[in-house]
Amino acid sequence: MDKFSSYFLKKLVATAKDSGLIKWGDRVMVCVSGGADSTVLLYSLYELRSYFGINIACASFDHKIRAESGEDILFTAGLCKKLSVPFYTESRDVKVYAKEGGLNLEETARILRYGFLFKAAEDFKADRLATAHHLDDFAENFIMRLITGGGAGAIAGIPVKSGIIIRPLINHSKSEIKNFADKNSIKFVEDNTNADIKILRNFVRLNIIPSLKECNPSFLKTVKNTAEILKKDDDFIEMSARKIFNDISKQEINGKRIVFKKQDLSVLEEALLYRILKTAVLCVCSCDSKIKNNIFIKKPIVYYNNFKAFVKLIQSEKPNTYFYINSFTAARKEYDKIIIEYIPAAKNLFFKSFNFELEEPLETPKSGLKKKYNIIIG
Amino acid sequence: MDKFSSYFLKKLVATAKDSGLIKWGDRVMVCVSGGADSTVLLYSLYELRSYFGINIACASFDHKIRAESGEDILFTAGLCKKLSVPFYTESRDVKVYAKEGGLNLEETARILRYGFLFKAAEDFKADRLATAHHLDDFAENFIMRLITGGGAGAIAGIPVKSGIIIRPLINHSKSEIKNFADKNSIKFVEDNTNADIKILRNFVRLNIIPSLKECNPSFLKTVKNTAEILKKDDDFIEMSARKIFNDISKQEINGKRIVFKKQDLSVLEEALLYRILKTAVLCVCSCDSKIKNNIFIKKPIVYYNNFKAFVKLIQSEKPNTYFYINSFTAARKEYDKIIIEYIPAAKNLFFKSFNFELEEPLETPKSGLKKKYNIIIG
Repeated sequence: MDKFSSYFLKKLVATAKDSGLIKWGDRVMVCVSGGADSTVLLYSLYELRSYFGINIACASFDHKIRAESGEDILFTAGLCKKLSVPFYTESRDVKVYAKEGGLNLEETARILRYGFLFKAAEDFKADRLATAHHLDDFAENFIMRLITGGGAGAIAGIPVKSGIIIRPLINHSKSEIKNFADKNSIKFVEDNTNADIKILRNFVRLNIIPSLKECNPSFLKTVKNTAEILKKDDDFIEMSARKIFNDISKQEINGKRIVFKKQDLSVLEEALLYRILKTAVLCVCSCDSKIKNNIFIKKPIVYYNNFKAFVKLIQSEKPNTYFYINSFTAARKEYDKIIIEYIPAAKNLFFKSFNFELEEPLETPKSGLKKKYNIIIG
Repeated sequence: MDKFSSYFLKKLVATAKDSGLIKWGDRVMVCVSGGADSTVLLYSLYELRSYFGINIACASFDHKIRAESGEDILFTAGLCKKLSVPFYTESRDVKVYAKEGGLNLEETARILRYGFLFKAAEDFKADRLATAHHLDDFAENFIMRLITGGGAGAIAGIPVKSGIIIRPLINHSKSEIKNFADKNSIKFVEDNTNADIKILRNFVRLNIIPSLKECNPSFLKTVKNTAEILKKDDDFIEMSARKIFNDISKQEINGKRIVFKKQDLSVLEEALLYRILKTAVLCVCSCDSKIKNNIFIKKPIVYYNNFKAFVKLIQSEKPNTYFYINSFTAARKEYDKIIIEYIPAAKNLFFKSFNFELEEPLETPKSGLKKKYNIIIG
């Protein structure tokens, strides 16, 4: 094996070690689309299977969006046969589901793909589900979230590990991956939808990241460091806020209402208040089993302007006042109490702001996602 | 006055009110270069002088970098005469100082300009020093810091108020400012160095921000919200860390050495550790009066890779070990103690790492700044 390929695998081992991704005896399901990244991931883990002491299998989802998707599946199936790796596949017409769910294609494909992957992982009794996200994906996600907004936790990027999902290539750049494929004559299929710059991700990859790299050739690594720092900051504040939330919040009507004493909130720093409000909104929304169980409904988010209105609500001298945080949730002040409550009737209303003059309309960033609800994935 | 101009001034009033920038009776020194932004700032504050109840004066620094700089000063002087506003000016050959100080032009101009502005503010007995930074500047700074790296606090952007400096136009975009100049027939001078994309700021303004705006037309506002959230997060963690630092650190040899018990550090979250290390490094460096008093030497910064080495130092099983954090500072472990110490001899050494294998070299982002020391402005 050439020097570069050996360095490539060593870097993968270092990532796995540093973040505790894999342990001896693990069963690892590798998610493969047939593209360069996931095919290289499959080869690398196959190459290292004895070193890690793991059993691997491969799962491939056919979303039927592109005409060639069936061929990609056949390609991956053939590869697995060659390597004697168990192969799992499922085919779903994403377009049909997208129409039903009222979400865009990309989002629907994501939901259905992960649904299949988790099921396949269960069948294989997998301890880990490995995806091929890499350093370029990481930077793209960071920039996309910066563009669409969302604050600290939200822009922190793709985690190397979340639940059983692991991302062993997160420290490798796309060019390293292509280089590895090249040096080891690894064949893969090309995804031609990657060139469509009407999709935000592609625009960021093709038009924005290259300019940023021009300024700083190690931009990808720099942005990863920044995101890591932000993630650690967010974790710390989340943890601090969770403790306080448990101490000062009271649930009423089966969790449909969270009640605080005004004075408990008014002494808190805004960093903590922001997390406490988000937690409260998440709590009261998840009391609705329809929201909880419908995979097409996304996590409720609190826009920054609504958070600012919440701060004003706490500071306001008026004894009774309220406003809608999103279509399902209102913040209300009753003398010395601040209440976050679930109001399903609000579904049919637009955002209201009584007693408050919001300086700007709610942000609705053009994120490439069809926005049916004022809630986006957190 | 037309509707737009009235809205423009109202927004300025809102910014001033929300952040407590100006109080009745204040003496405000306005920093004016003669360009569109600062000329509009002067006009706006002049227009609002009775509303705010303020006395204004104008200060203009001639850096002699461009051939026309003298003319710009004359332009501003003429304007002040017309408005009957006291005018302060000073002329310095920035190129000569840059050579002496070993810094680049932009940085030297900044230092000399602020030196003059503070002096002029003192002469005028100013309570406030108003600069014309606006929303586009804010977003540019954010993106520049994202490119060059630096973590949470560092990317948080330009504050609306720092000490006596206030930035009443921070919520106005460049296009609003130009529009205001247009509608009110305000003349200004053009700075043709703004088109030179070899300067990082110009590259960001001309090549990167427009792409980001293409994705989200209200990108400037979105990035400001994100930065505000990050700033509040950073403030909260800084505050938490400062308390802990005071509790667990011990100064020795006139502050040239900060000593911690290993176990006090090993239980802390990384978000706190990062701030504690930065504070310790700042403390031991500022014990050197030469560093403290030389305006050409910048604040010491802790690169993320060095922070990671520091975390390893704490976790390491080896009883004695050390490494250099920057040219002036070392982190040392002595059994159950962790020591941050000032070692001026290190000036002539490069960064060393004993017992540690740093995976990557220290980051030296190409930031457009000439990097003489491993310390950059925080």
